[in-house]
Amino acid sequence: MRAPDDRQDEADPFALSALANDSEIMPLHDFHAWLGAQRAAMTLEVRRVPLAAMDAWEATAAPHSLMHRSGKFFSVEGLRARTDFGPTPVWDQPIIRQDEVGILGILVRRIDGAYHFLMQAKVEPGNINGVQLAPTVQSTRSNYTQVHGGRQAPYTAYFLGQANGRVLIDRLLTEQGARFLNKCNRNMIVEVGADVEVEDGFCWLTLGQIGQLLREDNLVSMSSRSILSCIPFNANASSLYPLGQGGRSTLHREDESLNWLNSLRARYTLRREQRPLNQLDGWIVDDDAIRHESGRHFAVIGVEVTATAREVLHWNQPILAHSGDGINGFLLQRRNGVPHLLVRACMFPGNGLLFELGSTVSRSNGWAHLGLASQPPFLEYFFNPPAARIRYQGRHSEEGGRFYHYVSQYMIVEIPEEQDFALPENFQWMSIDQFRQFNHYGYVNIEGRNMLTCLSLTQNLII
Amino acid sequence: MRAPDDRQDEADPFALSALANDSEIMPLHDFHAWLGAQRAAMTLEVRRVPLAAMDAWEATAAPHSLMHRSGKFFSVEGLRARTDFGPTPVWDQPIIRQDEVGILGILVRRIDGAYHFLMQAKVEPGNINGVQLAPTVQSTRSNYTQVHGGRQAPYTAYFLGQANGRVLIDRLLTEQGARFLNKCNRNMIVEVGADVEVEDGFCWLTLGQIGQLLREDNLVSMSSRSILSCIPFNANASSLYPLGQGGRSTLHREDESLNWLNSLRARYTLRREQRPLNQLDGWIVDDDAIRHESGRHFAVIGVEVTATAREVLHWNQPILAHSGDGINGFLLQRRNGVPHLLVRACMFPGNGLLFELGSTVSRSNGWAHLGLASQPPFLEYFFNPPAARIRYQGRHSEEGGRFYHYVSQYMIVEIPEEQDFALPENFQWMSIDQFRQFNHYGYVNIEGRNMLTCLSLTQNLII
Repeated sequence: MRAPDDRQDEADPFALSALANDSEIMPLHDFHAWLGAQRAAMTLEVRRVPLAAMDAWEATAAPHSLMHRSGKFFSVEGLRARTDFGPTPVWDQPIIRQDEVGILGILVRRIDGAYHFLMQAKVEPGNINGVQLAPTVQSTRSNYTQVHGGRQAPYTAYFLGQANGRVLIDRLLTEQGARFLNKCNRNMIVEVGADVEVEDGFCWLTLGQIGQLLREDNLVSMSSRSILSCIPFNANASSLYPLGQGGRSTLHREDESLNWLNSLRARYTLRREQRPLNQLDGWIVDDDAIRHESGRHFAVIGVEVTATAREVLHWNQPILAHSGDGINGFLLQRRNGVPHLLVRACMFPGNGLLFELGSTVSRSNGWAHLGLASQPPFLEYFFNPPAARIRYQGRHSEEGGRFYHYVSQYMIVEIPEEQDFALPENFQWMSIDQFRQFNHYGYVNIEGRNMLTCLSLTQNLII
Repeated sequence: MRAPDDRQDEADPFALSALANDSEIMPLHDFHAWLGAQRAAMTLEVRRVPLAAMDAWEATAAPHSLMHRSGKFFSVEGLRARTDFGPTPVWDQPIIRQDEVGILGILVRRIDGAYHFLMQAKVEPGNINGVQLAPTVQSTRSNYTQVHGGRQAPYTAYFLGQANGRVLIDRLLTEQGARFLNKCNRNMIVEVGADVEVEDGFCWLTLGQIGQLLREDNLVSMSSRSILSCIPFNANASSLYPLGQGGRSTLHREDESLNWLNSLRARYTLRREQRPLNQLDGWIVDDDAIRHESGRHFAVIGVEVTATAREVLHWNQPILAHSGDGINGFLLQRRNGVPHLLVRACMFPGNGLLFELGSTVSRSNGWAHLGLASQPPFLEYFFNPPAARIRYQGRHSEEGGRFYHYVSQYMIVEIPEEQDFALPENFQWMSIDQFRQFNHYGYVNIEGRNMLTCLSLTQNLII
């Protein structure tokens, strides 16, 4: 039996990593040359094809849905959602069903006391720019059990307990509830020793380096951002964490926030029923694609992919295409001197647990047609805010394995301390430490986790 | 906007209540006379009837299930569960379905600084002894929306935000996942002022008094025990809380426990499908009852109830009958001097979230036929343990509205510090503070919450 808290008196290797703005292992001034070489080596040829032209995918009869002939990977199904919360009591939509739990895992290793993260240059068919910086392993169960006959992705054994490593983070967390039905992935960080070799396409980076790369558009992938949100930063490390509350009072106590969230979960309902894809109100299914009759929301299209460096060299797949950019924005305000985030309790049809916590605004551009009065609350704060109020800004991609060229504007906007306004019932101010604590216990959705990573890893550069 | 943490410098009224072993409002030496009078006034005549003789309940055709003709209240359905966890890969069982969220609520009021809890003498058809001490309000949505035409239960308005009170606790928590499908209730504590009148059948008690009543068998109801587990005791109040860790190290850090639990949730699966009641493997459905062919597990029987004090004076209902007592037991061990509980991650078919945290052993007597090798792990520690090792012992009832004369043996047994043993993968030692923290965030099942209340409210008497 090991001694408890055996590391508590040592310097925290996560904090040292965040403070390491560069590293000799892969200096940032070499990184882009390396990335460019990866981009050149790993090209994907992606060509739009009609859904009906994808041999390996077929529309099943009853209920009508789009499946891989193997029954594996994922399917696209029809969903009818009914709720007594929000402005839309009932709607239909296609939704991605992928019941298996995937692994999103990063290996870390101590170098000079600071954790270095083994990041992967990974190409995805939906990426706007080919290669992005993905976790060490990003693998569906179909991948790592090799349903499609390729080889197992490198380093997978460390996350399945089949190779020697120490699990630091292991969390089952939801994916986008607006597009996936009950989808969870296992977000992991595993520590390994110096004996792990770096394969081609991988490199060790510190959190400080990744933070600087988060200032660049479409580089650090969505799955990477999700995993990194789980790092338990020490809120007392003020040099690392200038936005912490440092023992000062918050607007609400944590149990008040729990009461607020549970009250929403108790009072509202969401009923979901599967519907045939070709009987969804407002949606058109033809040989080419599945799209909304308004042209808004999203479409399910087909792509034919030819890869130079991937487990399988040629495949077809459905993928979601959005007609414009999304937005993922947090309002920040100092309350009693403590920076607070305006947190939204979000109901999405794919989430079994009603109301997860997310950023102030997270939307695809489905709102673009709405009049100002019908737009999501607080959206207006993210249209051309004064530059002096922008605490973070970036453009980041959704996961390129399921989303086609879908980029969201990420933004943290600080509003003046004196500005007070009434909140809709599903919004609440939380300190960053409080939001981090809710994330620790699995209450935060993927949009919120992505923003938390941007905030955590860049705040010492921007405030 | 109110000042944050406005009570942090005052004496905690929960702690003062726990320390108040008696109160002038309803002294304990008067309590039993009052309870006896309630028992005499509130009698229920409960008679077993065949399921087929219950006029208001009918078996639907396809899928075969047992429903109220109104479509309200609850139904009994058939379920097939498949899992890759545990010794039984597939089984069928009846399960209670009640989609609506009920309210379990207690009003509290400060008297001499200490919270007093408005407890209700409440009779239920399944109670072995008629009246037990229930929450102020225990109401299904059918009740408080008056589907069955009775009057709304007193004090309900305080829990619906329709009367003046301050919400202290509001948590949506699961019920027994072995018997209910996806059932959650809203556990609430609402503070009111001195203007609230005490209706007949109600009385104000301190936590210290309730703690003493928890030393009596079948008195403090299951719903009361569930709500009381959510009270945020201050772990530093050592006079109240001698089993706290008081800043000392625990065997596992909290993030290690989260990793452990999430790893189980990620690696195992549970598939559930509805099956007709009359096609469940191993179950016999006839006009009289639904029972397992082995005579074990439980049966669904019918009762005809005539009440002298209840919203409706006469009704029939299905109810679950178990053939013997259940067990709910916690092993306790001092590790590094800190009391730890042996916590089990439990998979029950009714819980949508796989693996909630519960007590070391919680079972109906379905194990009684098994050989020693096949019995649930650690069960043997609760058979006739040395009296000096028993830290808590009591017999408590399951909820009498759905369970017929079903009593469980509650027991906390301390094992010597030097005793070490390997744990199955779904067990972990946690300090009481850690277990309480997981309960705070909604991870603990109803059996665990019930034990936590017994531990919290009696430990200053027993250690």
